Amino acid sequence: MREVAVLGVGQSQFGKLPERSVTDLGREAAMAAIKDSGLKPKDIQVAYTARIVEPMVTGQTILKEVGVTDIEMINVENACAGGSTAVRGLWKDIAAGFYDVGIAIGVESMTTSTFARQLIPPAKDDLDGQLGLTMPGIFALLARRQMDEHGATLEDFAQVSVKNHHHGCLNPMAQYQKEFTVEEVLASRMIVDPITLLMCCPNTDGAAAVIMCSMDVARKHTTNPIKVAGSVLLSADYTYRQDDITRSPLGGKAARMAYEMSGVGPEDLDLVELHEAFAPEEILRYEDLGLCKPGQGVDLLRSGATWVGGKIPVNPSGGLLALGHPLSASGVRTVCEVALHLRGQAGKRQTPEAKVGLAHMLGGAVAGLEAGACGIHILTR
Amino acid sequence: MREVAVLGVGQSQFGKLPERSVTDLGREAAMAAIKDSGLKPKDIQVAYTARIVEPMVTGQTILKEVGVTDIEMINVENACAGGSTAVRGLWKDIAAGFYDVGIAIGVESMTTSTFARQLIPPAKDDLDGQLGLTMPGIFALLARRQMDEHGATLEDFAQVSVKNHHHGCLNPMAQYQKEFTVEEVLASRMIVDPITLLMCCPNTDGAAAVIMCSMDVARKHTTNPIKVAGSVLLSADYTYRQDDITRSPLGGKAARMAYEMSGVGPEDLDLVELHEAFAPEEILRYEDLGLCKPGQGVDLLRSGATWVGGKIPVNPSGGLLALGHPLSASGVRTVCEVALHLRGQAGKRQTPEAKVGLAHMLGGAVAGLEAGACGIHILTR
Repeated sequence: MREVAVLGVGQSQFGKLPERSVTDLGREAAMAAIKDSGLKPKDIQVAYTARIVEPMVTGQTILKEVGVTDIEMINVENACAGGSTAVRGLWKDIAAGFYDVGIAIGVESMTTSTFARQLIPPAKDDLDGQLGLTMPGIFALLARRQMDEHGATLEDFAQVSVKNHHHGCLNPMAQYQKEFTVEEVLASRMIVDPITLLMCCPNTDGAAAVIMCSMDVARKHTTNPIKVAGSVLLSADYTYRQDDITRSPLGGKAARMAYEMSGVGPEDLDLVELHEAFAPEEILRYEDLGLCKPGQGVDLLRSGATWVGGKIPVNPSGGLLALGHPLSASGVRTVCEVALHLRGQAGKRQTPEAKVGLAHMLGGAVAGLEAGACGIHILTR
Repeated sequence: MREVAVLGVGQSQFGKLPERSVTDLGREAAMAAIKDSGLKPKDIQVAYTARIVEPMVTGQTILKEVGVTDIEMINVENACAGGSTAVRGLWKDIAAGFYDVGIAIGVESMTTSTFARQLIPPAKDDLDGQLGLTMPGIFALLARRQMDEHGATLEDFAQVSVKNHHHGCLNPMAQYQKEFTVEEVLASRMIVDPITLLMCCPNTDGAAAVIMCSMDVARKHTTNPIKVAGSVLLSADYTYRQDDITRSPLGGKAARMAYEMSGVGPEDLDLVELHEAFAPEEILRYEDLGLCKPGQGVDLLRSGATWVGGKIPVNPSGGLLALGHPLSASGVRTVCEVALHLRGQAGKRQTPEAKVGLAHMLGGAVAGLEAGACGIHILTR
């Protein structure tokens, strides 16, 4: 397999933007990534586009506006890991030598979707979902268990929101740029006990895009290429039908595979972008990714290490909580964020001397579904 | 790249089956393909699943029912070419050596979808679609132009339906198994002049699946492996915003690429399965695929060559018109059909001594969209 590089990154406006179409948002992100890469639209040889909500040749409609045509285009879906799936597909195509240059796009219009307003509805033949176990309900069960098993407190959950909203204030592309206190997070409207409104990621429209290429091509355009050292996509049964619902066997296994592939370990990471659709989840992901020992996620949070300026900043972008979470866009956007840090272009939220970063996304814990996808990319320079 | 083989094929019941879920249909097809391959669910290392209508980790929900877990799973969408996209993704993974064995599934529940009942609605920012140019309208424009440019008659269009419905009578898996006359087709309800009801593919629920593997693995399980000699997926602007709407530059280019890759030409084909969502379309596809010269599709049809028993049977399965068209399933199902003929297992519709076959699918000509996908696979033995 050949070495693969990230050459360009781009993001659209993120926010509640019902007046902007998916094509419009996707075009903004794609154009930004192409411009950032220094390449031309005609240099793109393959395109992967991720979207969950009402998809129909989404990549084609976006890319014709950008002037990209006559190439292989694949549209993918993998719940919140759809963006990671697009990046992984592109990585495989370039690593294997099918193509030298391609684009991965993730996009959603959540505010215009009936589907999204239902907090992710149950599958038609899923009894648990029909009984009301939507996404916030699942994560509330997980949070309660974290409190019982690992001594997590409501204040800990609130602290994740406080941290990521602080990070959002450092990121001009974030949907929300407002500081909150623990008290404000806890006093916000209760959604599913113990999860309050400010512990939930917002409903967000937006898109992200990344240009990837063979290392040979990258070296012609930059003296400081960002390498995709690890790329993993894995699906398995998980969440609450297991002995300990505070563990994610899927996420843990995917992380171990990514570390083995890239030859780096969690101790080598300079920053992490991960899936925290609800604040309590971030603590669980610390453990999945081996940033701390199992059950010690709360201690890691309390240590302050995961703040920008700490030992291992987590979600310096603001994460899903503050930056926003257009489902399929997030798995691409996290790769963009890590690349920006490795390039030293992350502005006020920059991780100093960042050389290794990890972009994680986990999806598909739809009510009662148990079977999702975890995508992990490790970037190095 | 390594040689890739088709080892197992399977299809669910096709029909109006609102009582059956996507999971249920997908499981039937996947189980059939796994059984047909002689492998076990645990042998499957990667899964591609195609679905347009209301997707959400569809492959994962199907495969957990089949006992397949802890592998990479990718869900894809590419309009009617979604199934071809799944097959192409799997081909690439095996050809490049990422995996040795995998499954591609295509599935739709059309009768339970609001979306499908709208005859494919326009994209949100598509003016032509909003003005009413849905799928039957587009193909009616094409048909009128075929009449003007190439001397096609209403009887020719009806004859395509008569042929494919005759083929459906030879296929126990077809949705419709009833003979029609030219007069009956022409007398059926007018949908969009000149397209009558019996010139339209029906609204169909169903699934298809294929097990593919490296040639090394295939040779351990069969003495007569079916080789995937050509695999192409291409997207480009096409349909009616071009000089001659009876040409498909996209389909023509994809076909030339597939012939070049596989080292066979249209003259070598023993059978073809292709996309004929509306009867007039089949004649255009003869020309795209080089089965005849441009503008001579009508002559090829009138010659009788494309009937079962003719020189180059087209849609011996019954095609989309009689077998049915669960959008994303069709691109997988056409590959299954070609494989059955090459194995000599196609029953009453068997193409004698078939050695080379082509499976074609074209999608995304959504009202005003112009940008679709064409998937072509050439199988040989």
